[in-house]
Amino acid sequence: MEDNFATALRQTAELMERELDRFLPTTSSLERELCEAMRYATLSGGKRLRAFLVIQCADLFSVSRDYSVRVAAALEIMHTYSLIHDDLPCMDDDDLRRGIPTVHKKFDETLAVLAGDALQALAFEILADPATHPSGSVRAMLVGRLAQAAGMRGMVGGQTMDIYANNEDISLATITRLQQLKTGALITFACEAGALLGHASPAQISALKAFAHDLGLAFQITDDILDAEGEVEEMGKATRKDEDAGKATFVSLLGLEKAKIHANMLSKQAIGHLSMFKGNADLLMDAARFTVTRRR
Amino acid sequence: MEDNFATALRQTAELMERELDRFLPTTSSLERELCEAMRYATLSGGKRLRAFLVIQCADLFSVSRDYSVRVAAALEIMHTYSLIHDDLPCMDDDDLRRGIPTVHKKFDETLAVLAGDALQALAFEILADPATHPSGSVRAMLVGRLAQAAGMRGMVGGQTMDIYANNEDISLATITRLQQLKTGALITFACEAGALLGHASPAQISALKAFAHDLGLAFQITDDILDAEGEVEEMGKATRKDEDAGKATFVSLLGLEKAKIHANMLSKQAIGHLSMFKGNADLLMDAARFTVTRRR
Repeated sequence: MEDNFATALRQTAELMERELDRFLPTTSSLERELCEAMRYATLSGGKRLRAFLVIQCADLFSVSRDYSVRVAAALEIMHTYSLIHDDLPCMDDDDLRRGIPTVHKKFDETLAVLAGDALQALAFEILADPATHPSGSVRAMLVGRLAQAAGMRGMVGGQTMDIYANNEDISLATITRLQQLKTGALITFACEAGALLGHASPAQISALKAFAHDLGLAFQITDDILDAEGEVEEMGKATRKDEDAGKATFVSLLGLEKAKIHANMLSKQAIGHLSMFKGNADLLMDAARFTVTRRR
Repeated sequence: MEDNFATALRQTAELMERELDRFLPTTSSLERELCEAMRYATLSGGKRLRAFLVIQCADLFSVSRDYSVRVAAALEIMHTYSLIHDDLPCMDDDDLRRGIPTVHKKFDETLAVLAGDALQALAFEILADPATHPSGSVRAMLVGRLAQAAGMRGMVGGQTMDIYANNEDISLATITRLQQLKTGALITFACEAGALLGHASPAQISALKAFAHDLGLAFQITDDILDAEGEVEEMGKATRKDEDAGKATFVSLLGLEKAKIHANMLSKQAIGHLSMFKGNADLLMDAARFTVTRRR
């Protein structure tokens, strides 16, 4: 039987499919191919864990779902753009994503670059819209924080490190920093955004950012574990690519067993940061557990 | 002797080099190659006409240069990202830009995609920062308008049309719409942003947007004329590419003489929209004249 967390995560995923559908262009409104590529990439499922974190963190402060769902949609759109560009031939050169062909395989490279570019702009457009929050300062702050998380000192910086890192020099400290930028920054934004929408106190914001930091790292270590253990069919994307490419991962640096212990420890540590929210953060605690127990 | 307009445009270009330098990362602060690619593309000169329009339109309303220069920098950064991605092999495949190798030629394709992605995020980060305007609503509005101008219904939409358009079907109406999206949207944002910073009246905003609309189109027609007439050395980029590719342009559709007449007419029409600003808009009127008389 599905538990509370699994139900909430599934409901979020279903909600996001509907919401994202509303934000994306329809074929009649602009270039058909661009529109199709944007929709194909964004509406192809996914766990929507980032959306879940935005909504659950905002719920802690009784923020209207009208607001938090828009921020969640903007974040999923930003995440989707990064996946499209990361999969490009000049990046990780992946053919499969979420079990279906990547955008440049289904369409072409040109549309993959353009659809990614348009999705990044769309994410900021959604955040800046008055419907996202009545306060212009809150909207501007959300834009500023997402821009930092996505840009040169966040996601793009991490992706650059990942591609150009000299694998022989990579230490646990380096890969931790790399992943904190590449995937951690958007996850931290998810939790911080929920708090910003709810005018949370500095202490509450710090606690949620610390939670996100540990959860994000546990998430990435688990990704490496699943990549080393998993099968293509289960994961919906190519597996053991890192191993085949001789690329440093948490598993190659720590070994499988120590990597699992490290991920579990981080998950517990993440949960510890939520103590101030008492019984209100049960679903966020479940999310931290799910992060390390998931099979894909 | 240099006239007032030429002096003001040159001073803006010099100012922008200094300001953009401040906003761009230094090599010590992140991945060296990403940083170098971002700086190389952004600080390679250029007329800085978009920055000039932001600053001059804001000056009409006595906006502090502290604000307008930041918006101008954000816009030049957004424009730079679009040039990097447009030059990619999977797009227009250009080797030369502003007289020097394009980013993917000087560095590689990977860094060209990443530097463009990071520059787009940086543009929004600058706009959202409290230093750009004291009002959060104004900052959020600037972000929203730039996101629309840059995204699927603006610049990226226009670039998609440009690449996938069936040349045999292109009419004057189609190419006008295409260019209005591809280059006009950012030029319109430049003028609108100056007005938004200055809390301009709806009538003033409309006048400046109409000015920008006509100037943007005159600018693009002149680009096509220069492309048909110019030499590589003078233009700093490959010329007659469109002609060689059998691509529809204003010149191929109208012929050289009618294209010149059309551009001049639009330039005069642009100037007409500024009548309500009396003697305060002389430099903007000069900009409209420059748009059609420039040699590169």
